[in-house]
Amino acid sequence: MSTIINDIEIIKAETSKIKDIDFDNLKFGSVFSDHMLECDFKDGKWQKPKIVPYHPITLDPSAKIFHYGQSVFEGMKAYKDTNNDVFLFRPTDNIKRLNISAKRMAIPELPENYFMDGLKALLKVDEAWIPTNEGSSLYIRPFIFASGNGFHASPANEYKFIICTAPSGSYFSGKVKVLIEETYSRSANGGVGFAKAGGNYAGQFYPTQLAIDKGYQQVIWTDDNTHEYIEEAGAMNIFVRINDTLITGPTSDRILDGITRKSIIAIAESKGIPVEVRKITVKEVVDAAKNGELKEMFGAGTAAVISPIAGFGYKNEDFDLPELKETYASLLKKQITDIQTNKSEDSFGWRYKL
Amino acid sequence: MSTIINDIEIIKAETSKIKDIDFDNLKFGSVFSDHMLECDFKDGKWQKPKIVPYHPITLDPSAKIFHYGQSVFEGMKAYKDTNNDVFLFRPTDNIKRLNISAKRMAIPELPENYFMDGLKALLKVDEAWIPTNEGSSLYIRPFIFASGNGFHASPANEYKFIICTAPSGSYFSGKVKVLIEETYSRSANGGVGFAKAGGNYAGQFYPTQLAIDKGYQQVIWTDDNTHEYIEEAGAMNIFVRINDTLITGPTSDRILDGITRKSIIAIAESKGIPVEVRKITVKEVVDAAKNGELKEMFGAGTAAVISPIAGFGYKNEDFDLPELKETYASLLKKQITDIQTNKSEDSFGWRYKL
Repeated sequence: MSTIINDIEIIKAETSKIKDIDFDNLKFGSVFSDHMLECDFKDGKWQKPKIVPYHPITLDPSAKIFHYGQSVFEGMKAYKDTNNDVFLFRPTDNIKRLNISAKRMAIPELPENYFMDGLKALLKVDEAWIPTNEGSSLYIRPFIFASGNGFHASPANEYKFIICTAPSGSYFSGKVKVLIEETYSRSANGGVGFAKAGGNYAGQFYPTQLAIDKGYQQVIWTDDNTHEYIEEAGAMNIFVRINDTLITGPTSDRILDGITRKSIIAIAESKGIPVEVRKITVKEVVDAAKNGELKEMFGAGTAAVISPIAGFGYKNEDFDLPELKETYASLLKKQITDIQTNKSEDSFGWRYKL
Repeated sequence: MSTIINDIEIIKAETSKIKDIDFDNLKFGSVFSDHMLECDFKDGKWQKPKIVPYHPITLDPSAKIFHYGQSVFEGMKAYKDTNNDVFLFRPTDNIKRLNISAKRMAIPELPENYFMDGLKALLKVDEAWIPTNEGSSLYIRPFIFASGNGFHASPANEYKFIICTAPSGSYFSGKVKVLIEETYSRSANGGVGFAKAGGNYAGQFYPTQLAIDKGYQQVIWTDDNTHEYIEEAGAMNIFVRINDTLITGPTSDRILDGITRKSIIAIAESKGIPVEVRKITVKEVVDAAKNGELKEMFGAGTAAVISPIAGFGYKNEDFDLPELKETYASLLKKQITDIQTNKSEDSFGWRYKL
């Protein structure tokens, strides 16, 4: 039996799994809400999205996703305030970036209203899944992959756009130590590093595992040509504070245009923090660490929001960052999450009430 | 009902689709044999492979293949001679390369005997699917992908190794014209370009589509830093003949170690053709084209074997290659396919009789 909300057909699950979920002990992205959005590209166009019970996907073994990695995704979060009002954060930017990623991966771009109307309907149906615990949120994962068949190395003729949601706790637990990479690289000039393409992530797993084996949690990627410039931190953009100045690298075809990244830049500037968006050399970070001018490093991304870095390794040397009482990381994290969760005014117009 | 061949369990399809196949008009990789090999990595180890009817794969929407592109593959061919004996070509090299690719993508390496014993059993069961028409073969696609679940950007805890086969005709039809790329790149230093990782292919689709729109069929990739060096041709390695010398680029972490590539180098050397394995600049190719010293260019790979290039574009200029009566491309293609199809002696020991 189906109903229609905002022109979106909704087929409800017969039973809910929500009673099985321990909302006080949520991990990141490992339990999934009752419903999902499903939308097919076939016969040369995107068909209308539907909300359907969360269900397995069935594909031919020759589906191109298995062979040629044609996939893109986004990460978003929904928050619920004390009035049970539901908010998204800059969702239009996710839609636009999904289509930028899709274009680079030769995936047909999605009509923006299919994304937004569909997501609204999905969150309406699964509203009870949005956590209210401090630090938790409903992680939203929109993704598109090549579902069309055949071994010819060319774009598929069919795709699936899906949105799943997962009530989630924090992405990292404990102190994050990072390793500045000297050998491996994440992306090429003229490559796909700016896109949220699946293959960008798989390519990082092995070097990250090598770093984990050495006692670090994440790799700080450097440019593939000289390894002299700091680029990004895998699932996050990277910020460095030298004395009182906050520095982050410019976006490029190698670096993801992070929504948290640009929000942090805007908030920091509004607070009078000196911000520089420019190339950062590994040398200046190491020098600043040695002479005590390196005050903070942190990662920024939707999943982790802001993830303070406790220290870094470079060329077999370890550098600890100072433990400051008041950090830019905690100030900026409070500012951005207060906006996201409707605890503060939103002078930027970023919050999006459903 | 199942049987056991070489310690491999075989569950046969109830009916065969083979009567529906037009073996005289085979495309590349678009119809699939009755059976497939299926092998799961779970509980920390690769389980025993089975031969089962070709069937759809069912995955949770959170399966990591959809999100993080963790996949690798191989391409092989099986040939049948006039005695109905079946041959593979250097299969051990495919197994080793699959595991090299797997390691780079943080996928657990596969026991070599699971691959080979499983493939032998599969080809035994689907022997009737191996075409005998000139220029056709049974294309074999071994692949591994992340089937484990969860949105955390880290390696999956479960994987599927599958081998499907597809009776196939030629990969390219007609003359191939290529565009030497000046903007986009295929791979980074320290990246995953040497691996047969899914994402490497998806990243090429958009630039290739731009080339197709300009009247070319393939892109010749150049290095991501200067675009001054010729690297490879997407699904193929690239060879250039200047005067009588055959030149191909060295393998690196950016360039696939092609089995056809190294076989061609060995055959050419055995025939007394001067071969140089060294970096090739775009400038020397363009200069040679202008002064008439560029005699041939061709791609080499399992799918296309040898694919002669009729001309190339660079910086809005088009260069036609001469139409020679006797080409290295046709000489070398005959040599290699005669070995593959058991029409000639195999002094290299490459042919593998099943």
